[in-house]
Amino acid sequence: MINFTVNQIAEIIQGEIIGSTDSSIFSFKPLETAEKGDLTFYYNEKYEQLFKNSQATCIIVSKTNESSPSTNQVYIKVDKPYEGFVKLLKIIDKEKKIGRCGVHASAVIGKNVTIHENVFVAPNCVIGDNCILKSGVELMPSVILYESVEIGNNSVINSNVTIYQEVKIGNNCIVHAGAVIGSDGFGYIENKFDGSFDKVPQLGNVILEDFVEIGANATIDRALIGSTIIRKGTKIDNLVHIAHNCEIGENNGIAAQTGISGSVSTGKRNRYGGQVGIAGHLEIADDVTILAQSGISKTIPNKGIYFGSPAKEHLKAFKIEAVLRRLPELNSEVERNSKEIIKLKEKIGD
Amino acid sequence: MINFTVNQIAEIIQGEIIGSTDSSIFSFKPLETAEKGDLTFYYNEKYEQLFKNSQATCIIVSKTNESSPSTNQVYIKVDKPYEGFVKLLKIIDKEKKIGRCGVHASAVIGKNVTIHENVFVAPNCVIGDNCILKSGVELMPSVILYESVEIGNNSVINSNVTIYQEVKIGNNCIVHAGAVIGSDGFGYIENKFDGSFDKVPQLGNVILEDFVEIGANATIDRALIGSTIIRKGTKIDNLVHIAHNCEIGENNGIAAQTGISGSVSTGKRNRYGGQVGIAGHLEIADDVTILAQSGISKTIPNKGIYFGSPAKEHLKAFKIEAVLRRLPELNSEVERNSKEIIKLKEKIGD
Amino acid sequence: MINFTVNQIAEIIQGEIIGSTDSSIFSFKPLETAEKGDLTFYYNEKYEQLFKNSQATCIIVSKTNESSPSTNQVYIKVDKPYEGFVKLLKIIDKEKKIGRCGVHASAVIGKNVTIHENVFVAPNCVIGDNCILKSGVELMPSVILYESVEIGNNSVINSNVTIYQEVKIGNNCIVHAGAVIGSDGFGYIENKFDGSFDKVPQLGNVILEDFVEIGANATIDRALIGSTIIRKGTKIDNLVHIAHNCEIGENNGIAAQTGISGSVSTGKRNRYGGQVGIAGHLEIADDVTILAQSGISKTIPNKGIYFGSPAKEHLKAFKIEAVLRRLPELNSEVERNSKEIIKLKEKIGD
Repeated sequence: MINFTVNQIAEIIQGEIIGSTDSSIFSFKPLETAEKGDLTFYYNEKYEQLFKNSQATCIIVSKTNESSPSTNQVYIKVDKPYEGFVKLLKIIDKEKKIGRCGVHASAVIGKNVTIHENVFVAPNCVIGDNCILKSGVELMPSVILYESVEIGNNSVINSNVTIYQEVKIGNNCIVHAGAVIGSDGFGYIENKFDGSFDKVPQLGNVILEDFVEIGANATIDRALIGSTIIRKGTKIDNLVHIAHNCEIGENNGIAAQTGISGSVSTGKRNRYGGQVGIAGHLEIADDVTILAQSGISKTIPNKGIYFGSPAKEHLKAFKIEAVLRRLPELNSEVERNSKEIIKLKEKIGD
Repeated sequence: MINFTVNQIAEIIQGEIIGSTDSSIFSFKPLETAEKGDLTFYYNEKYEQLFKNSQATCIIVSKTNESSPSTNQVYIKVDKPYEGFVKLLKIIDKEKKIGRCGVHASAVIGKNVTIHENVFVAPNCVIGDNCILKSGVELMPSVILYESVEIGNNSVINSNVTIYQEVKIGNNCIVHAGAVIGSDGFGYIENKFDGSFDKVPQLGNVILEDFVEIGANATIDRALIGSTIIRKGTKIDNLVHIAHNCEIGENNGIAAQTGISGSVSTGKRNRYGGQVGIAGHLEIADDVTILAQSGISKTIPNKGIYFGSPAKEHLKAFKIEAVLRRLPELNSEVERNSKEIIKLKEKIGD
Repeated sequence: MINFTVNQIAEIIQGEIIGSTDSSIFSFKPLETAEKGDLTFYYNEKYEQLFKNSQATCIIVSKTNESSPSTNQVYIKVDKPYEGFVKLLKIIDKEKKIGRCGVHASAVIGKNVTIHENVFVAPNCVIGDNCILKSGVELMPSVILYESVEIGNNSVINSNVTIYQEVKIGNNCIVHAGAVIGSDGFGYIENKFDGSFDKVPQLGNVILEDFVEIGANATIDRALIGSTIIRKGTKIDNLVHIAHNCEIGENNGIAAQTGISGSVSTGKRNRYGGQVGIAGHLEIADDVTILAQSGISKTIPNKGIYFGSPAKEHLKAFKIEAVLRRLPELNSEVERNSKEIIKLKEKIGD
């Protein structure tokens, strides 16, 4: 439950109030469910009808919006309505966070563990020998750290996460529930005679740099030797798989269920849609975007947008797709042409 | 271990006995492994050879089946053999279930938690402040509930599940092991200058209505604001991802590893094959079936069956696929035609 | 930290030393980061430049390699550099392993559980009634076993794994963190009138034979009746889904995020790339390889390599793909041909 006046909100997001200003806001809601007492936002014309019919007490809109609020309704005009709204969410989010610290009695702590006094360890966590938890770290219930794990300042690890030995997590990271960091890479030597597999010990580790976020049930395998690295600022969504010895560049955004095979290195500012697959040992340039469900089988040396499985430059892929959609007609046209040619040949006595 | 006579079974499933009736059944087995003392079922002609050679003591078959049981074997004829068999499984399943209740001493319970006297909380569960567990709820070992989670009557949550704050689960739901419900949506504002991401707080929740089942290691993200909703009767398989602010309609069936992007709404009775992907903000009509591995990039306003990535109406997709399979031959035909045309032009002195 | 002399290493891997032999090795590193004091290996020409510039003290190379080590650098020549390197890793891996045993006081053990004296049960494990843990089993923290689970000699189960009732795990298996074994198969009877689902109890189990490895957050569903079986020596990567009643053959290798639908049986020595999907009830022959992201919709009776969704024999698929890439040009050629034919027909007065 929140309680703001429209005036307070307009001040926070530095917006212009259109309509009566003495209303109070008790909740933030999406456009489709916002009612009296609620604040919402509108900028995507797709939802114009919802906007026009909205009973929300206050709507953050774009400066260029020319509509007028209904009776008992207020608009707040700003340059970027979504960004303004997020500013408010951040304030509420900050207020919600209780500065927790302390180690719950049920947590099991190994030998030679360093825990800063400002750390929160929830019930049923297990912390292996030689781990280091720096200031502001929060471990939610049932987080398991194997030996010699390091976690940097203010990083939050959610429940049922497993972090294998020697993994290093930077500052201000978030790891969501059920994620596994540092499991063995999928490495075997194949016995050519019977097709059996001989396991190759995976003796490297995983390094997450600062401001990395890892989604729920995502998995990041440890390196054979050396490190699997996720560079600063990269955000990884749920159920993503990063194989051993990958080096994922700075500020990548990797959507859900994408899988990146072993020893891939990606550039800066890559964007991966959902369910993308990348084959092993490839290098991806800076500023590459791969659209959802694409499969990358070759190194991508140049920035751009790619689509398809196997992927092509996206405009090329879209052109191919356009023809593909009329492939049966194309086929018929070819058959007709073939028949016409036979007739023509007969006609001219070929 | 079970112990039924053939007569008892025939009575339960209201079937007609063909053959000797005094045999006993000690186990239910699949057709390929059923032996003396076992009961099995047969209706799919694909497995006719297994059926004919089966040594099972009792086989549930269709009324239209005209074979005769071998010596010491009994058939029970019913309209729908599989449905009859499932009826038996349900009886055994019910008998197996022990009415468990009580809170294990190792569970850690927060402040102001409401637990009905008829609830089972297994070892090592952690229940956050202000949670509510209604009658018949079962939490298997190491279930973690953050604050203010509500779980309705008779819902079962399996081990190592994490449910984030404020999630509401209805009555008669099942959540399988390792699933994560209520993790943060993948929402960031991108800094255009350096491509870095600014996290948008995800302050909404997740609502599962009644009779929802969530598969092992599936993930359902909380809404930005408002709720991610899974409507009544919907069944979600393992490793499925549902992003923030989705509204999944009633009685959907979503097979393993499908991913649904943010703010998608689906109609009633949708069916999704495995590994389907749906792009963000789309609306899917009632009675839509999407075949496995398809990718949906546009709103689907009409019921039907769709296939492909990007998806087409399935009969169209199959026609395209038929031509695609002979694309090299089509290409050769076009090349031949082009050459013939040149020859024809030469011949007529063009 | 390790400490070998080059002589010791050459002896272990039976290699020929090229260069000075009195150096010491303190660490094993990948070619791109190895420096003074490090040992690395080289065999893939793709990394020739890294090899030539490497400052590693010792590099294991192929017998056929004709380069010379730089000053203060040693080569060790062997038939197979990677295999030689792995031999060293195995020695280090073995030394790292401490023979742990004992049951931690925080573990919760059910009734009638059999635990060999040589078993390690870490903190916060929960072991259901009637479980059997054989010699050398290791359960890492927060492993949950439901009732009547059996685990064979020397098998290791990592943290936050859930194993449902009656699952049998063979000898020398490894299950990585977060995996779920024995969750309910996705089985329902559909009510034709309202599209709702009636859950079919899943009363079978899962059997892992010896030397099986299961990746992090993978899921393997229990059978309806009978068993879902993973045969000897099969290795399954992270986030793979195996549905109910599958029988996965011996020595299969199944890469990350692949999904196998219900009642599929695979032959021996199958290889599945990442994100492959297989439809239900199919049979796959021995020695079949399916390339990444392929979708299998039909039984594969013959060994071979397959690609695409739906999959084709891979050479055929590559031929199709080659034409597909120039589909817009093919389309233009057809249009040109059609026009030429019209002109020809006019010309000859058709």
